[in-house]
Amino acid sequence: MNGAQAMIQTLADSGVRACFANPGTSEMHLVGALDHEPRIRSVLCLFEGVATGAADGYGRFSDRPALTLLHLGPGYFNGGANLHNARRARTPILNLVGDHATYHRQFDAPLAAAIEPLAAENSVWMGTAQTAADAPRLASAAVAASLGPVPGQATLILPADSAWDESPGPADVTAPEVPPPPGRDLLAGVAARLRQAKAPAIFIGGDGLLDEGLRAAARLAGLGVRILTETLPARQRRGAGVFAPDRTPYFPEAAAADLAAIDLAVLAGARAPMAFFAYPGKPSEGLPEAAVRLTLTAPGHPTADSLKALADILEAPEPAPQAKAELPPAPTGALSAMTVAASLARLLPADAIVVDDGVTGSGPAFPLTRDAAAHDWVFNTGGAIGLGMPVALGAAIACPDRRVICLSGDGAGMYTCQALWTMARERTPVVTVIFANRAYTILNIEFARTGVTSPGEVAKRMLTLDQPAIDWVALSQSMGVAAHRTGDAAEFDRLFSEAMKGDLPVLIEAVI
Amino acid sequence: MNGAQAMIQTLADSGVRACFANPGTSEMHLVGALDHEPRIRSVLCLFEGVATGAADGYGRFSDRPALTLLHLGPGYFNGGANLHNARRARTPILNLVGDHATYHRQFDAPLAAAIEPLAAENSVWMGTAQTAADAPRLASAAVAASLGPVPGQATLILPADSAWDESPGPADVTAPEVPPPPGRDLLAGVAARLRQAKAPAIFIGGDGLLDEGLRAAARLAGLGVRILTETLPARQRRGAGVFAPDRTPYFPEAAAADLAAIDLAVLAGARAPMAFFAYPGKPSEGLPEAAVRLTLTAPGHPTADSLKALADILEAPEPAPQAKAELPPAPTGALSAMTVAASLARLLPADAIVVDDGVTGSGPAFPLTRDAAAHDWVFNTGGAIGLGMPVALGAAIACPDRRVICLSGDGAGMYTCQALWTMARERTPVVTVIFANRAYTILNIEFARTGVTSPGEVAKRMLTLDQPAIDWVALSQSMGVAAHRTGDAAEFDRLFSEAMKGDLPVLIEAVI
Repeated sequence: MNGAQAMIQTLADSGVRACFANPGTSEMHLVGALDHEPRIRSVLCLFEGVATGAADGYGRFSDRPALTLLHLGPGYFNGGANLHNARRARTPILNLVGDHATYHRQFDAPLAAAIEPLAAENSVWMGTAQTAADAPRLASAAVAASLGPVPGQATLILPADSAWDESPGPADVTAPEVPPPPGRDLLAGVAARLRQAKAPAIFIGGDGLLDEGLRAAARLAGLGVRILTETLPARQRRGAGVFAPDRTPYFPEAAAADLAAIDLAVLAGARAPMAFFAYPGKPSEGLPEAAVRLTLTAPGHPTADSLKALADILEAPEPAPQAKAELPPAPTGALSAMTVAASLARLLPADAIVVDDGVTGSGPAFPLTRDAAAHDWVFNTGGAIGLGMPVALGAAIACPDRRVICLSGDGAGMYTCQALWTMARERTPVVTVIFANRAYTILNIEFARTGVTSPGEVAKRMLTLDQPAIDWVALSQSMGVAAHRTGDAAEFDRLFSEAMKGDLPVLIEAVI
Repeated sequence: MNGAQAMIQTLADSGVRACFANPGTSEMHLVGALDHEPRIRSVLCLFEGVATGAADGYGRFSDRPALTLLHLGPGYFNGGANLHNARRARTPILNLVGDHATYHRQFDAPLAAAIEPLAAENSVWMGTAQTAADAPRLASAAVAASLGPVPGQATLILPADSAWDESPGPADVTAPEVPPPPGRDLLAGVAARLRQAKAPAIFIGGDGLLDEGLRAAARLAGLGVRILTETLPARQRRGAGVFAPDRTPYFPEAAAADLAAIDLAVLAGARAPMAFFAYPGKPSEGLPEAAVRLTLTAPGHPTADSLKALADILEAPEPAPQAKAELPPAPTGALSAMTVAASLARLLPADAIVVDDGVTGSGPAFPLTRDAAAHDWVFNTGGAIGLGMPVALGAAIACPDRRVICLSGDGAGMYTCQALWTMARERTPVVTVIFANRAYTILNIEFARTGVTSPGEVAKRMLTLDQPAIDWVALSQSMGVAAHRTGDAAEFDRLFSEAMKGDLPVLIEAVI
């Protein structure tokens, strides 16, 4: 048994069930090992940014990390932006990065590049297998580290000889470390502060935004505590019957106005609000300076139980069930971001997953789907566009029984459009909606915010995608995914409704 | 005048004429400044890997660096693989990486990521503008550093406030540092060794592979000195009337056999040959252990003049002009890598540029075009696939009067297929040939080299691209580039011939 086989067996024993890969020569022994491990589903991606995004999507909906196989430093570069997004979402992932054989490194061969500096910031754990005997033990440790105490990416660098040399065999499974829950004193202290504050708020993240956490949050809201999320949380349960926290506004002046009254901010698995970007003369911090900040649970730590404990201490009653809201009627007329949102609200099936990389196009979709059938919403937590289709692919592989919808801007979608091919190959019934406004609309807004009221020709050309217009239908079909284009609200509604019933991936180019 | 304006003016004063960009919010003031600088052509790319590859192609055919605009750490990640390739080619490039405002960094906003660790290995120079006053001076220094003493990438990190704050104005142009030529003693010593050796070889790189250098190399070859290139040099002049050095074989056992007799290796702007990858039991070094190694010029240093000086000391006569070789006839029958090569050999127009990211598909093209009309060949020096179309785009913008041909594998092409859109938009008449063998053929070879004679289903699926087959014609047309598909040699010959005459980009899917 070589190092690769011992390691892959260790990973399967540790619960790993999916691998998203674009392997190269240095990973051939890993591919050989995967060939003999039926417990792990190997999914080929045509670009590493698709593989890492898919691993992020998988990890946001699984209690196990997916593997990625990356080809030396350049492969890591290609996957790096979606690993940045995954870092911000604290998604468990195990990156296996093939490298040159240990004795070959001294020659600085063409593909050689230092991997550690690229992976350091993204990783909660890093290791390098110096021998085939090391590889299984490190793999076991890496899986555990990806799951806790704070979930995230483990990056294991595998020199080729650690894969092909003989190994003594697989390693034991390592139990992940679980962080201790907040102590009674902290809970009591936070509860006391909440009672005293005039305008208290709790910012919730992590599992605080899933069913149990939101039930507790609803009880706290009933006491007059304002409940908020970060602007772009990793994952949020929502829809009919689910408590809907407020969302921190994106632009800093809007956030400052919205949060101005807060005198106590309790952070429960969330970070204190900050501006996505700085702007001259605008605040960077979201909270007023005078607001007291208290941390109930650190980001990435279990939060739902702590919210429930807090609600119990405060003797918060269960809220009355919400009246069932009426969903919007089928939209008609010209297609727009608003009518797309209305169709989503009407037609989202129960337990859907919506992956939102729609930038401005999907702006109305989040508020308008508040009362849709209960579903999960995935944001681009790290802000690097090109997350949508890959994350949707990975979520669909993690949750084969759930319907996955990807909302993508046209600019964002072009970053990782290769994901469509893997959707076709794996027959994952992701429904991708491309908001084809043929511009980086957010950047037109941002450019106007620099104070330029009439951009010149160069600036206009740098911020628009209309010369030529991208034919998303042809692009999608070229990779085997059926596609439709429409600029009509009623037709979109019909196409989306049909797509929800199919069992193959579909793309709809929504010309808005 | 703000920092961005002062900096962009400094760059234009320093000779910068092209900018390949995918800007984001943190670069909006730079876009605003480019709007008012007519000397710099701004080219929008839909993905940073296209922008950085285009800058590489531009820089390989220009005596000035192109700019890239990259959006924080994630933008650098996306462009990183092609910057790795450019590093190996020692291409002058100036990467402008937008970052958060200096005072905003403390908040670790979602897109924040440390940029220096990502750029360090790729860069010959790095700097961060802490103020708007710093930016122009650093920009001037960065341009100079990108050009010498060893050309390469300068990376200038621009916090947003260094762009928007008031600046005292543009900085003076900095002269690049020129390395000293080899001294008389070194030249005389190398000459003496060459006279004494039984089987001397010179490995040539850099400008030694352009017209002047190859003329001197031909004289040295006439003395019985073997002349070689690295396996994947950055750029090589070749074709009818141009001296053709030997090329170091790719696989280590082939290289070892080919180079076994060499007792003296003179390195002239090239590195000593090493295996691209290590394999169990195969040598990493290309040269026999006993061979003496001498460095005439370091990689990246001017080399052509030194080769001429060496030929003069050795009193090497001018070689007799080569007899004009006959070009192959128009191929017929089923299309193959060989018939594509024959068509290239017949039809390459004078002074063409061939960018080779064709992996196995373009294997026969290089030897078969040895006697084609004189042209330049560009290799994937860094080995990270996905260089082809972006580099071709950049070369075409640097050399609007030359015909640029891109040879790409289908696997490689999918990495950065977004380049097609910019070709269409900029009307750069690049002719892209996709070798559609619907597999990572090189990896099938590499997998077989691991000793597995019959790959299982998982391995087969990880190394093939045929489920579904990618429709390159639809993909290309979706981005505005006319396209054809053929599996017939005569039809390819006709399509390629026609494409050579057009003035718009064309893609040919060569089904082999």
